Amino acid sequence: MIQLLEGHPWFEISSLAASDNSAGKAYGDAAHWQLDTPIPQAIRGMVVEQCRPTLECDFVLSGLPSSIAGPTETEFASAGYPVISNAGSHRMDPDVPLLIPELNPEHLGAIETQRKRFGSKGFIVTNPNCSTIGLVIPLAAIHRAFGLEAVHVVTMQALSGAGYPGVASMDAIDNVLPAIGGEEEKLETEPLKILGEWKDETFEKAEMRISALTHRVNVRDGHLEACSVKLRTEASAEDVRNSMAGFTSPIDELDLPSAPRPVMILETDVQRPQPRLDRDRAKGMAVVVGPVAACAVLDFKFRILSHNTIRGAAGAAILNAELLCSKELIG
Amino acid sequence: MIQLLEGHPWFEISSLAASDNSAGKAYGDAAHWQLDTPIPQAIRGMVVEQCRPTLECDFVLSGLPSSIAGPTETEFASAGYPVISNAGSHRMDPDVPLLIPELNPEHLGAIETQRKRFGSKGFIVTNPNCSTIGLVIPLAAIHRAFGLEAVHVVTMQALSGAGYPGVASMDAIDNVLPAIGGEEEKLETEPLKILGEWKDETFEKAEMRISALTHRVNVRDGHLEACSVKLRTEASAEDVRNSMAGFTSPIDELDLPSAPRPVMILETDVQRPQPRLDRDRAKGMAVVVGPVAACAVLDFKFRILSHNTIRGAAGAAILNAELLCSKELIG
Amino acid sequence: MIQLLEGHPWFEISSLAASDNSAGKAYGDAAHWQLDTPIPQAIRGMVVEQCRPTLECDFVLSGLPSSIAGPTETEFASAGYPVISNAGSHRMDPDVPLLIPELNPEHLGAIETQRKRFGSKGFIVTNPNCSTIGLVIPLAAIHRAFGLEAVHVVTMQALSGAGYPGVASMDAIDNVLPAIGGEEEKLETEPLKILGEWKDETFEKAEMRISALTHRVNVRDGHLEACSVKLRTEASAEDVRNSMAGFTSPIDELDLPSAPRPVMILETDVQRPQPRLDRDRAKGMAVVVGPVAACAVLDFKFRILSHNTIRGAAGAAILNAELLCSKELIG
Amino acid sequence: MIQLLEGHPWFEISSLAASDNSAGKAYGDAAHWQLDTPIPQAIRGMVVEQCRPTLECDFVLSGLPSSIAGPTETEFASAGYPVISNAGSHRMDPDVPLLIPELNPEHLGAIETQRKRFGSKGFIVTNPNCSTIGLVIPLAAIHRAFGLEAVHVVTMQALSGAGYPGVASMDAIDNVLPAIGGEEEKLETEPLKILGEWKDETFEKAEMRISALTHRVNVRDGHLEACSVKLRTEASAEDVRNSMAGFTSPIDELDLPSAPRPVMILETDVQRPQPRLDRDRAKGMAVVVGPVAACAVLDFKFRILSHNTIRGAAGAAILNAELLCSKELIG
Repeated sequence: MIQLLEGHPWFEISSLAASDNSAGKAYGDAAHWQLDTPIPQAIRGMVVEQCRPTLECDFVLSGLPSSIAGPTETEFASAGYPVISNAGSHRMDPDVPLLIPELNPEHLGAIETQRKRFGSKGFIVTNPNCSTIGLVIPLAAIHRAFGLEAVHVVTMQALSGAGYPGVASMDAIDNVLPAIGGEEEKLETEPLKILGEWKDETFEKAEMRISALTHRVNVRDGHLEACSVKLRTEASAEDVRNSMAGFTSPIDELDLPSAPRPVMILETDVQRPQPRLDRDRAKGMAVVVGPVAACAVLDFKFRILSHNTIRGAAGAAILNAELLCSKELIG
Repeated sequence: MIQLLEGHPWFEISSLAASDNSAGKAYGDAAHWQLDTPIPQAIRGMVVEQCRPTLECDFVLSGLPSSIAGPTETEFASAGYPVISNAGSHRMDPDVPLLIPELNPEHLGAIETQRKRFGSKGFIVTNPNCSTIGLVIPLAAIHRAFGLEAVHVVTMQALSGAGYPGVASMDAIDNVLPAIGGEEEKLETEPLKILGEWKDETFEKAEMRISALTHRVNVRDGHLEACSVKLRTEASAEDVRNSMAGFTSPIDELDLPSAPRPVMILETDVQRPQPRLDRDRAKGMAVVVGPVAACAVLDFKFRILSHNTIRGAAGAAILNAELLCSKELIG
Repeated sequence: MIQLLEGHPWFEISSLAASDNSAGKAYGDAAHWQLDTPIPQAIRGMVVEQCRPTLECDFVLSGLPSSIAGPTETEFASAGYPVISNAGSHRMDPDVPLLIPELNPEHLGAIETQRKRFGSKGFIVTNPNCSTIGLVIPLAAIHRAFGLEAVHVVTMQALSGAGYPGVASMDAIDNVLPAIGGEEEKLETEPLKILGEWKDETFEKAEMRISALTHRVNVRDGHLEACSVKLRTEASAEDVRNSMAGFTSPIDELDLPSAPRPVMILETDVQRPQPRLDRDRAKGMAVVVGPVAACAVLDFKFRILSHNTIRGAAGAAILNAELLCSKELIG
Repeated sequence: MIQLLEGHPWFEISSLAASDNSAGKAYGDAAHWQLDTPIPQAIRGMVVEQCRPTLECDFVLSGLPSSIAGPTETEFASAGYPVISNAGSHRMDPDVPLLIPELNPEHLGAIETQRKRFGSKGFIVTNPNCSTIGLVIPLAAIHRAFGLEAVHVVTMQALSGAGYPGVASMDAIDNVLPAIGGEEEKLETEPLKILGEWKDETFEKAEMRISALTHRVNVRDGHLEACSVKLRTEASAEDVRNSMAGFTSPIDELDLPSAPRPVMILETDVQRPQPRLDRDRAKGMAVVVGPVAACAVLDFKFRILSHNTIRGAAGAAILNAELLCSKELIG
C-alpha cells in the first residue's frame, strides 16, 4: 500500500499505525519489507504510532490482520474517521459497502446509514477478498447484459495472497495446496453482495448460485481463475465477450488516478492469461480475461487473471479512497 | 516404463527399439535418463534396435511419440504382435479398447474384431491420456451407482506430463500455463468411450456431458483435478463417497501385480490430496480422492490426484499387459 | 526421525516427548507431518509425554529446537540417560563428541569424561550441522591421505534445512537467499573438531583454514556444496579421487544397519551430483561427490551432495545410536 | 534487446534480420516473445529480413546464436558495418574489444587494427558473457586499487541465461544443475582480457588466477556469484569496499543513456543481494555487491548480483553502442 501511494497525485501518508509491538519504532525498522523497490525515503524514518483513533489524518487506510481489524475499525469509525479497509471483518456487515468503484459506486449510499449507527461522521468502506475481485468484474459485465444463473469457479491463487510469512516454502515447492481456508465461502458470497442493490437501507443480494474450489499454486503474484457460467438469456460466445469489451462504468468520467482503462483486458490467445506475463498489465489494476468458449456443462467458460496484491488488495483500497475523495466523502 | 518393469514378477525386457537415430547405440548412451533411480544394469548395455516388426518378444509395450506411433503400431499389429500402447494415436479407433483394467476389462472383446481387420493374431490395446485416467476412475464408481449427467473438471497438471524436454523452465517458473494443447478434448471424449459398452462390434459411448479446462502448474509429477458432477439420481455426499469406497472390480480376484488395492484412496482432509504428498501412494497406481462436498451449481464437488507418469502412463500400460497376460491374450 | 525408525532392526520407539504444548495429545494430533509417507500406525496414537527425565527408555534421541535443547539435554544426561542429539547446543562442548561413526568413532572416549562431569551414567553425543556433514566426509578422506591446508566451500542448501515452517515461500520462489544465520561459522569450525583428536581428555582441533559462504536455494531436500581444497602434500586429481574411493572406516566391520556402503559415491559426470537426482542414493545416507578437477586458485575443486534431513540430521543421529549400541554404550 | 531499445533517446530500429526460417515474416509472427511487456507496436509488423550485409542501418546489434554468429558477423564487418555483438564467437579474437564501457573504453583502440584486417570501415565489438560481467566490474575496482592475485567464484545463475527454451522445467524444478557448459572457462579467461591492456596492437592479459564453479538455479533472472579474492597489497575489508564505492570511470562524463550511476550498488545487509529483490535495481544495469568480509582462505569474500539478460546481455550491447556513438565510431 505504501509502495502504491508513493507519488500518488492526491494522497499523502500523514501517519503510520500498527500493533503496540511496532509502535514507537521507525517504519524502516518495524516493517518486513519484501518488495523489489526500496522503502520510500520519507516513510523509512516515520515513527509508527499506536493504532488508536488519535491519528492525524483525513481518512484511514486499513490493512490490519482480520484478528484485530473488526473492533479497531469500528473504534475509528465511531470516532469519526472514514475507514477504507482491505480487511475482511466488516465486508458482510449489513450497511458496509463492499465496494468496487467500477461496479457499484451507488453502494456508497450505505454510508449515511452507517453514520447514523456510529453517531459520527465516520464510516467503513471495504473492498472484496483478492480472489473475489478478479472474478466479479467480468461477472458484472455478463450479469448486466444477460443475467447470470450460475457460476462455477476454480482458482489457482498466488502465494502472496496468504500474506507474509504465509505459506511455508516446503509446502509450496513442487506442490498445489487445495482448499484455502475460508476462501471458498468468500467467493460464493461476496459477489452476491457486490452485484446486488442498496435499497431501502439494506443490501439486496443478486440471485445466482456460485460454486468455488480454491487452490494455492507456486506463483508469487497473480490469481488465475477458471470460470464457467450459465446465463439467464441466450447469447453467443461473441456476445459474452462483447459484453466485457463494451463494459462502461459510471466512474469512467471521474478519471480516478488508479482506475485502469479499460478495466478488463481481453486476450484472444487461449494460452493466456498467465500469471507471470499478465499480472502487471495496466499496473496490476486491470483484470485480464482469456477467450470465451462454449462449456458443455454450463454455457460458457473462460479464464481470469488479476494481481492479487494490487487490484485484489492495496490498489483496490486506494481506488476506493479515490472514489470517496472525488465524491467528497473524505478529504 | 523400464524403471517400473525392473523386477516385474511376470515380464522381462527382451528388446528395446527406438527411432533410427538411437538404433545401434547402447540404451545407456541413447537415453536421456532423468529419474532418481539409475538405469537398471541389465538394460544399460542393451543395444537399441530399429522399430520394425522383427523384434523378438511376446508383445510390444509402446511409448512412441504420437507423431510416429500411429503407423508403427499398426505395422506391428498387422505383423501379429500384441501392441500395448501408451500413445494417443489409436485411442479412439472404433475397435481399439481404451482399457482400464479395473473399469472395462470386457472391452477386450474388441480384440477379436481387430484381429479380423488386421488378418493376424496382432492387436492394439491403449490406455487413456494421463489426465483422463485419474478422472475416470472415480467417475466410474459414481456413474455405476447413480448415473452421471454432467462432469466439470479443471486440471492442474504436472510438468512431466509434457514429456522431456517438454515445458521450458522459463515458462514454468512463477507461472501457470492454461489450455494444454489437445488435452481438453481428450478429457471431454475419452471418458465416454471408457465408461461405454462394447456391443455389436462397436463401442457405444456413455451419455454424459463433460467440460474441461486444463492447466500446467509448476509441479514435477501428479495431476490434480477439481471436479464437479451432476447425477441422474438423487444421492447424498456420503452416498457418493460410499460409491467410491465400495467400488469393486471384476479384476480384483486376478491379483494383478501392479493393481492397487484399493484403486481409490479416500482422503478426509479437505486440504488433500496434494501432488507432492499423495502422488506416490500405492506406488503411484492409486487415485487419491478428497472429501465430497455439495456443489452449489452441479451436485457434488471433489478433488482427484493421480501420478501422471505411473498410473497415467507407464504403469497403466503395464497393468494392461498384466490383464492381457492373465486372460492369456499375450505371452 | 520417526519415519526412519519405522522397521528399524534394533530400535523401537518406547516414548515420545515434546514441549508442554503438545504433551498429553496423541502424536497424530500434535505433529505437523509433512512427509510423503503416512505416520506409522503404532506412533499415531501414542500419547506425547512431557520432556522430563522420567521417560522410560534406554536412550534419548533428541531433535529439540536449539532454544531448549541445551538445558533439557543436560538434565537428561545428569539423570543418567544417554542422549543422542541432533541439536546444536552441545556440539562444541569440550567433552561432547561431534560424532560421525565412519570418521571419528574414537571420539567416544570423551563419554567417560562426561560421566565424571555429570556424576551419572548419562552422556551426550551429537552429530554435526547438516551442511557440515556432507563436507567433512570427503574432507576426511583427503585429509587422511594428503593433509588439508585450506578448504573453501560455497553451499546451495535445501529449504528443509530450515525446519518447518522455515523459509517463507515468498522468499524462496524465484530467488536465492544468502548467508544462512550461523551456518557459515558452523561450517568453519565443526570440521576442525570432527577431524581432530580426542587426547588427554580434550579435543585437539585439526589445523586447517576453512572459509564458507552459504545460500538457501529453492530445492526441497539435498545440500549441494562447491568445494575447493589446498593440500599439504602434492597429489593429482586422480589421487584425490582415489583417496575417497579407497576410504575405509573402522566401523565397516560393525555392519551398522544405517551405514551406507560405500559412504561416498563418486560420480564421473561433471553435471552431477544434482539434488533431485542424487539425494536419495543409498537411502539418503551416502555423500555423492562429483569429479575432482584442478582449481586455478587452490589445488582441487569438486562438488558434494548430501541429504540434509537424512544423512545431515535424523539418519546421522540414528547411525550414532547404532554405533553406541554396537559398542554397548547404550541399550 | 528490442524491449530495451523501445524509446531509446539515440537509437531506432531500422531493420530486423534473422535466419532464413524467419525471413519474410512479420516480427510478431516470427518471434517467441516471452516478456511481460508486449512487443512494441512499431516492431510487431516489421518484416524480418535475411541476415545478409544488405541491411540499411548505421550499425548492427547482433544477438545471433553462437552457431552462426562467427561467420555472419565477420561478413558484416568486412562489408563495412560496425557490429556490436552479444554473441560469444569473436570475444577472444586478438583485435576484438571485449568491452565494458565503464572499465576499458581504451580497448576501442583495437578497432583501427580490425579495420586494416577487414579492409573496410567495419569492425566488431563484443560484450562479455553474462556471468563474467557481474564479476569483472567489482574486480576491476579492487584490481585497480590493490592488484588482484587470485579470484575464486561460485555462480548461481538464472534460467534465462540459457536462452529459450533453454533448461527443461523438469530439470530445473526442485534442483540445481552444476557445471554449465563452457561457462567456467569463460569466467576464467574473459576477465583477464577485460582487465588487461591494449598495447602495441595486441591485448596484454591481466595477470591473476581465476577459478570458477558454475551452477544453474531455479531463478528466472539474475546471476548471483559468491566470490573470494586474494590481493597483491594489504588492505582491510573497508578498503576493499571503498575501492568499489569510490570507483570512477572515464565514461562518467559522457552521460550515456544506459549507463547506471553508480555502476556498483553496495549493500550492507549480509542477506543481500538476492536475485528477486535486487536484479532490477538501476533498471537492471547496476551490479549489486554485498558486504565485504574476511575470508579465512583467500583475503576477502563478498557476493555479487547482476541482471543477466540486461547488464549481462542486451543492455551491455546497447551501452557499448552508446559508447561507440559518443566516440563517433558509429552513426
